[in-house]
Amino acid sequence: MTTKSYPETDRSTLRRVKELGTRERAEVHAILDAGLICHVGVAIGGQPFVIPMAYGRDGDRLLVHGAIASRLMKHLRGGGEACVTVTLLDGLVVARSGFSSSMNYRSVVLFGKGRPVEGEEEKARALDIVADHLIPGRSQEYREHLSKELAATEVIEIPIDEASAKARSGPPHDLEKDLELDIWAGVIPLTLTPGEPEPSPDLPAGIEVPASVRKWPERG
Amino acid sequence: MTTKSYPETDRSTLRRVKELGTRERAEVHAILDAGLICHVGVAIGGQPFVIPMAYGRDGDRLLVHGAIASRLMKHLRGGGEACVTVTLLDGLVVARSGFSSSMNYRSVVLFGKGRPVEGEEEKARALDIVADHLIPGRSQEYREHLSKELAATEVIEIPIDEASAKARSGPPHDLEKDLELDIWAGVIPLTLTPGEPEPSPDLPAGIEVPASVRKWPERG
Repeated sequence: MTTKSYPETDRSTLRRVKELGTRERAEVHAILDAGLICHVGVAIGGQPFVIPMAYGRDGDRLLVHGAIASRLMKHLRGGGEACVTVTLLDGLVVARSGFSSSMNYRSVVLFGKGRPVEGEEEKARALDIVADHLIPGRSQEYREHLSKELAATEVIEIPIDEASAKARSGPPHDLEKDLELDIWAGVIPLTLTPGEPEPSPDLPAGIEVPASVRKWPERG
Repeated sequence: MTTKSYPETDRSTLRRVKELGTRERAEVHAILDAGLICHVGVAIGGQPFVIPMAYGRDGDRLLVHGAIASRLMKHLRGGGEACVTVTLLDGLVVARSGFSSSMNYRSVVLFGKGRPVEGEEEKARALDIVADHLIPGRSQEYREHLSKELAATEVIEIPIDEASAKARSGPPHDLEKDLELDIWAGVIPLTLTPGEPEPSPDLPAGIEVPASVRKWPERG
């Protein structure tokens, strides 16, 4: 069943500054699709761990991967609870006071249990989705996955069914009485910008930059 | 006592791809100083939560702040364990195989218990450190903190004494036999780039962009 919004649950309740938050599916997906890395949080024996990871989205599941031997992957394979957060930093909000200073951002926080993706074909497809999330079209350009590579890689899916998004945009909200102060206020916009592609030193002469890399700046 | 490296502990042991990791104090500090946001992970009743936050560094303590009423702040105020991760994404590593595809990044993972920063003066100083971490020099430009603002703000310090850094840089490491394939390989470098400062619509005419904002691109 596809609904427009994710359900409100105790852990996904938007407690702070509710006006910034939403559980709308389209908004959650848009932020997940715009991000490049996620921060995966787990609690192992009560101890929190937060690890940055690449990811991909396939409909209502989030896909991550890692080495079979990794502690985090083992935890997720065993059905461990995860909190996955994706944050896009859009700007620094420069206010007349420290209190009103802020950041412009878009973020998603989702909760769910890990589940292993099994089978060579399913794993290969999931890895292609992660690769194409980072660089759209790349999975059509690289060589096929080897069986031993797939065997060494744990692929985990986390259902996207308990998620919320938060965002802030626009200028600072200063106190009325601060507006007459002789202090500049505004926003420093920030963008993650690609530079010129750097060919590998071991690249044979005559191999052109492929479409996926050439078109990357328009991925957004 | 200041040592060159943070101690190895069970939770800060670098388990995966050890050659990329270090516990050197200078390296940890350099990454913390270059980042803008951290992801704070806590476990509340066994449930992981990962929240993006602004932060600052004051020697060997990390400073974060939030609303007094926030669940995360209450947990940290009560001495709750945190895992704080700062990740800088430097590039996408485009390999001839999915398996060798990667990212260039610098990251720090630190573990510690929260402690409240108490007293108006100490809180104000900590908030200035966070502000100056984001925009060096800004605390000299904005107006003084109000008592009621300080009272509404929880400031938490987390000791930086159990931390590790990881980093990857450079071209992809493809399999020897993949080097002769007719597939492009290299790196798409990524930089968080500031745009032109956007003055607030409520800014009176004649107030110049201040030094902190003008010089921001060189903060790195």
